[in-house]
Parts: sequence; C-alpha cells; structure tokens
Amino acid sequence: MLVGVVEPGPKVLYRENEIGFGGTAEAILDRLAHEVRQGLEAHPQATSVGVGIPCTIDFERGFAVSSVHLPIVGVPVRELLQERLEMPVLIDNDANLAALAEHRFGAGRGTRDVVMLTIGTGIGGGLVLEDEVYRGTTGAAGELGHTVVDAEGPPCFGNCPNRGCVEAMVSGTALARDGLVAAQDHPGSALGRRLDAGEPIDGRAVTEAALAGDEAARAVVERAGRYLGVALTSFANIFEPDVIIVGGGVMAAGELLLGPAREELRSKALEPQNATRVELAELGPDAGMIGAATMAAGASVAA
Amino acid sequence: MLVGVVEPGPKVLYRENEIGFGGTAEAILDRLAHEVRQGLEAHPQATSVGVGIPCTIDFERGFAVSSVHLPIVGVPVRELLQERLEMPVLIDNDANLAALAEHRFGAGRGTRDVVMLTIGTGIGGGLVLEDEVYRGTTGAAGELGHTVVDAEGPPCFGNCPNRGCVEAMVSGTALARDGLVAAQDHPGSALGRRLDAGEPIDGRAVTEAALAGDEAARAVVERAGRYLGVALTSFANIFEPDVIIVGGGVMAAGELLLGPAREELRSKALEPQNATRVELAELGPDAGMIGAATMAAGASVAA
Repeated sequence: MLVGVVEPGPKVLYRENEIGFGGTAEAILDRLAHEVRQGLEAHPQATSVGVGIPCTIDFERGFAVSSVHLPIVGVPVRELLQERLEMPVLIDNDANLAALAEHRFGAGRGTRDVVMLTIGTGIGGGLVLEDEVYRGTTGAAGELGHTVVDAEGPPCFGNCPNRGCVEAMVSGTALARDGLVAAQDHPGSALGRRLDAGEPIDGRAVTEAALAGDEAARAVVERAGRYLGVALTSFANIFEPDVIIVGGGVMAAGELLLGPAREELRSKALEPQNATRVELAELGPDAGMIGAATMAAGASVAA
Repeated sequence: MLVGVVEPGPKVLYRENEIGFGGTAEAILDRLAHEVRQGLEAHPQATSVGVGIPCTIDFERGFAVSSVHLPIVGVPVRELLQERLEMPVLIDNDANLAALAEHRFGAGRGTRDVVMLTIGTGIGGGLVLEDEVYRGTTGAAGELGHTVVDAEGPPCFGNCPNRGCVEAMVSGTALARDGLVAAQDHPGSALGRRLDAGEPIDGRAVTEAALAGDEAARAVVERAGRYLGVALTSFANIFEPDVIIVGGGVMAAGELLLGPAREELRSKALEPQNATRVELAELGPDAGMIGAATMAAGASVAA
C-alpha cells in the first residue's frame, strides 16, 4: 500500500511506502484511515481523499464487488472511510486511476482517448475516453486484461473463469508459467540452471534472464509480446485511441516485449488504427496514487 | 442503398428501398444526391441530412478512409453532398448509426452504454458510451468485428489483414466457409445435398438448414455462437455496458446462435460483467437510416 498527499501539478508532497496491511476488513480500514490521517496531519491543506484498490469497484456505491486478495467484498469502503476521516472520499479501481494519471500528467498528456494496460502479476486495465475515466454501468468496466486473445488458450488467473485472456498469456504469472516450461525444456539455459539451483522462476526472473540474453527466456518474452500485440490490435480496432499506454513491472522487459507487440499491431490492425501509438507509462508505481488524488480533486471541484 | 425521411420519434415518412448504385465516386454522389432530393421534395420540412456508409469514416473531415466495396476512399463525401444539396450533411459509419438508433429507439432505449454488433456478410460494430456515439481519434473506432477471438484462427475477410477476428468466425462469410466444409464432410446432410445439387452454400443457406434441423448446419452455427460468446465476454469485461445488442441478417439464426453465445458470456465473463444483458436488435434494416437521421437532427439542434 502506498499513501501520499498530492498537489495539482502533480506534486507529491508526502509519501509513505511499503505499508503492509491485512486481516479483516475492519483492520484494513482502520490501518488505511490511520495512514491517511498521518498524511493529513503533515499537510492539512488537503481537502479530499481518493483511494485506488485492485478490486472490481461499484463506483457509485463505493464498494468492492469482487476481489482476488482483499476481504472487503460488499464492504462500503467509501462510506466507512468518510466516517472515519470526516472528509469526502472516492474509491476506484487502481488501474483506472493509473490511466487517469497517465492521461493528465504522463504518456497521455494532451490526448483525448487513452487505453492503458498495467502489466504486473495480473493485468489491470483503464480507459480514459473523451477525457474522462470510462467506468461502465457500475464501475467494473476497463477489465482489459480479460480480453480474450486465444479462445483455446490456457486457463486465466485469479477470479477469472475464462481461458486465453491476455492476462493468461502476458502477465508476470503467465511469464512464470511459460518460463518454468522453458527451464524444463532447456536445462542448459539460464532459466534451466536457475531451476536446477532451486531458485524460483517468477516473471521477474524470466524478464531478467531475457534481458541478459538467455535465448530460452527471450523466446518466452517474445511470444508473450506477440500475444500482447494481438490484444493491442483488438484495442486499436475497437477504440482508435490517441495512444495505448503500457506500464507495470513486467514492462521492465522493455522492447523485448514491446517490439513484437508493436509489430503485430502495425501489421494486423485495420487502417487507420494500425498507426496507433504505443507508449511506455511515465509515472511508474506512483500512477495509481496520483490518479486517486486527481479523481478526488476533480470531485471536490465539481461538488 | 436505402434513402428515407425520418421524423423524431422516430417516424419514417418516406422510404426508397433497393436503390442500386455503383460506378465512379462522382456517379455514386450524383445518384445519392438525386435520391435524397426526391425525399426532400416529398417532405420539404427536413432540415438536415445524415448518411451512413459501410466504410471507415473520418468523422470530422467527412470522408471515407478505407472501404471494401466503394471507390470513395479520400473523397470528401460530406462536403460534396453539402454542395449538391445546399443543406447540412453529416456522414458516419453505418454500424455506428445502427447503434445510435437502437440506443435511442430500439433494444437500448433508456440505457446509457450500448455495445452493438451488426452481423451480416461481415460484422459491423458500434459503441454508444455515456449516451453518445464513441468514435475515437478520427472516427474509425467501434470496429468490433475485428476483435480477435482466436489468435490462431483463420484469415479474416475484406480489407482486414488479421486472423481469428470475430468476423472471421461468426459472419455470414465465415458461416459459408464452415458450411462448405460441413457439406463436404457430411454428404448426406441438407448442406451436403445442396452442394451436390450445385446450389450455393452461403450464410443464409447454413442458417436456414440449421433452423430446419440439419445437424451438420446446427453444429456450424453453434460453434459460431460459442465464438460470438468469446467476443461478447471480452466486450462485457471491457465495457460493462448496460446491454449488448446483436442484429443483422445472420441473427435470423436466433437462439441457435445466441444461446451458445449467452452461455459463454454467463460462464466466462468476470463478475459483475457476467450478468450483462444480450438483446436482439429491434429496428431491423432501418436502424442505419434512423440512426443517420438521429445524428443529423442532433447536429442541427446543436448547430
């Protein structure tokens, strides 16, 4: 968890990193309220609070509809935090907020329509269409990671009952799965030696081995890049956005992943969508926090 | 081509069906202007003209960017028609306009966010998001038929360089392709006997045979229905719309096609997206014309 105080600009005035939290919904809310209060004491000029959560959110009602990791489904997070903090609170999906931040202050500055993927353990998605976050009927829209790229593909992860979603092919979890197979198939490769030494084969290990030139790992990352490109092609055809922004930890793989993805988009999308720009995210791990503050500031202005 | 005069409501006051046209861009524009003038003479109260074209449209600039059938790429259709008719003209992709019409007057009445597929020879797509047609950067958005459902699938049709798009799996052209294979594999089936008699196996022949109970044809339609469901699942996860509307000639197959599609959506989409409504279009072949008039009327009010 990351808590901060952000001024328009954006300027991060306060930041508290690496706050671990867990336990019951009550414990999570207490901890969150406590940490926000710390920030508010340091910067009492703050007038509203935005919260980004990696869950499917009912935006109007302010609670989590489904969640892979947090025991807060159905808990009225917005209302309970508002009571604790005595200040306006808005909550949204963290990937929506990352997209908002990149649209306002990052790789989407000056554009109107942004499609954003945050590729980490899973794949989060966010849509800023005609300059506003698009949320759908209840706030669950933008689950771009659960766009199918291969109907015959492997089972997806987390609470997704589908198969062959782009998350199932390109996320850190997918790279780990495919990296393990590559390690078994190529015992002499860097991944194979890692497996032999009993070290974990996670997404990071795969991208690092690929960046260091290991052929088996490169093949895994390049294959993932092509599947990422299949999804980007669909998004370009669907949205014709000004830009598709790609961020998250897996993008440490850089052009190894993005090169094949761009090539797929250029050669397979319709015209004029095949000219859609694809850019790396600029705001890094702060994107969600900056987006949450942007949302909260916008709402207080509007209210 | 279909030309009509439409009052808000909508009420179709005038309709000229089955106008064949072709030749050069000049000939097409002359014929179109002539037919519109006929309508305007019969109903001089009309104040604006909307045109729906089955091409990728640059909406602001009013011309076709790419086209499978019509020789009008790069021709400033809106401007040239405005000159000929001395009246405000707007042009848009016909599937966008069908979506607008269904949103205002059809299966999407009273909703905010509509995703619509028009499944005919190809698959047209339209998006009405937050009550307005979503067009993307230049007007090319909403090409929902070119959402990939199977990266390893067969080549797509028309001017699409991709493979495994939903159009490549579910359109009338796809049904014809798969129906021919089924006819060859099952010579005793209705499709097989059709092939033997030298009759064409087109999408219509496949859906009619399926509706009449032919097992080989039913298997083709049901498989297409499952792939349609893969696309609907992606659209539900991406947009969480109020409703997905499905229309076009291929929907004559009705529940044979839509049943497997709905089942796929219910079982494979995320929560709450798995509850997304899927409805048949209500306005039939008039949808594009009604949408064009709606767009034109909206613009004249705004202008």
